[in-house]
Amino acid sequence: MSEKIITAAIVIIGDEILSGNTPDTNTSHIAKTLAQKGIDVLEVRFIQDEESAIIFAVNELRAKYTYVLTTGGIGATHDDITAASIAKAFKVPLVKNPKAYAIIKNRYKERLNAHYRSMAFMPEGASLIANSLSDVPSFYINNVYVLAGMPSVMRVMLDDILPTLKSGEKVYTNDLTSKAQEYVIAESLSNIQAEFPKVSIGSYPFYDQHSKGTTLVLKSRDTDALKLATQKTLDMLRMHKHEPLVNFEIDIER
Amino acid sequence: MSEKIITAAIVIIGDEILSGNTPDTNTSHIAKTLAQKGIDVLEVRFIQDEESAIIFAVNELRAKYTYVLTTGGIGATHDDITAASIAKAFKVPLVKNPKAYAIIKNRYKERLNAHYRSMAFMPEGASLIANSLSDVPSFYINNVYVLAGMPSVMRVMLDDILPTLKSGEKVYTNDLTSKAQEYVIAESLSNIQAEFPKVSIGSYPFYDQHSKGTTLVLKSRDTDALKLATQKTLDMLRMHKHEPLVNFEIDIER
Repeated sequence: MSEKIITAAIVIIGDEILSGNTPDTNTSHIAKTLAQKGIDVLEVRFIQDEESAIIFAVNELRAKYTYVLTTGGIGATHDDITAASIAKAFKVPLVKNPKAYAIIKNRYKERLNAHYRSMAFMPEGASLIANSLSDVPSFYINNVYVLAGMPSVMRVMLDDILPTLKSGEKVYTNDLTSKAQEYVIAESLSNIQAEFPKVSIGSYPFYDQHSKGTTLVLKSRDTDALKLATQKTLDMLRMHKHEPLVNFEIDIER
Repeated sequence: MSEKIITAAIVIIGDEILSGNTPDTNTSHIAKTLAQKGIDVLEVRFIQDEESAIIFAVNELRAKYTYVLTTGGIGATHDDITAASIAKAFKVPLVKNPKAYAIIKNRYKERLNAHYRSMAFMPEGASLIANSLSDVPSFYINNVYVLAGMPSVMRVMLDDILPTLKSGEKVYTNDLTSKAQEYVIAESLSNIQAEFPKVSIGSYPFYDQHSKGTTLVLKSRDTDALKLATQKTLDMLRMHKHEPLVNFEIDIER
């Protein structure tokens, strides 16, 4: 098991997600998938289909995190500007990738036109990401991985790159949801947090017409510390006469 | 009607959203609500419950956009660090706001404790945002508006600030969804885009076991240009023997 902390940022490119009209489902899938490899997603950005926005985000994030994964803007229409923008971010020309071109030619045959051909253009030095669903590949360059926006295609592309990404040490999580209100447990919780610096304890109150209470989320790379802190938190809830609403156990396989 | 372009960024603070375990519903609600006032949300970030991450994002975004709206991290537990972090971002002390304190005292009465009292601490110079659901207010300072993470509370806080935000000129949208595949229409679409520079045309292919096709999204502040471009796009689809799957009309009320 690696000792290293491996980090990632996700960049969701597209006006339709930003406007709130199309719900984003890619972020959650990517974050959960990377977590299984012990890769911490530390930032997500939704940005416009706009060259300067893409260049700014990609350059800022690739310097900050181990990996950057983008989704969106790699189709065959005039608004698909991700590849060209990333070439500019890396200050390299956008060139026709012969392997990508061969795949595209083979897929579209007599339907091949200039727009489909445009999908073979990638930043110089890029390597291919395979697309087992609809053939047309995408690419990565250095630590920036460019995935499709369409969830089904994004998923197969993510599956393709996953084995090549470095693994980090996994973070294990325990959730304790109860009807305890935050103010009742805030002080005890803060003491438990102080006692277990290796465990991060988040407190998320919920409040709707059906019920109110708090979900406590304990996370750690250290399973012993996590077990102890979880037991203490459970004891603390019971001391306040609350039981978890859902059974739980230390999730060591996640 | 204002001529101005008014922009905003949204910052979703919290490890639970970043991890993908809790789905984010706030972004879409805020983006759609601001769009109704003609405010363009140009960027969304999900960041950690972490002081340096909050300071970095808030300072970068408040310099770039008319407004920054944050959600999350304003409760009563040890992990609620948004107010303190924003005070640091603005380089002002975190002080007890007397109006907020009076509201909190009145709400909790004999249950008032140090943790509830902590919610009255805000950056010096901040003004209150009312909470019509559960009383405890939040705050804004300059162009940064700090909202609750809990969706029900976030919504009433957004309703409170909305009348005070500047209105921009509205963007109108038409969607045309058909079974046309992108490669068939890509060239015609690119010609329509070139003819109507004031209209932004997005093309979003879909592809699943049930159907495949493309949603074309036309947006503009100029309703005449939007009508013309939409008519041309519709004619183009018909020329390719496709009809929109859903009836549509120029959406001038949005």
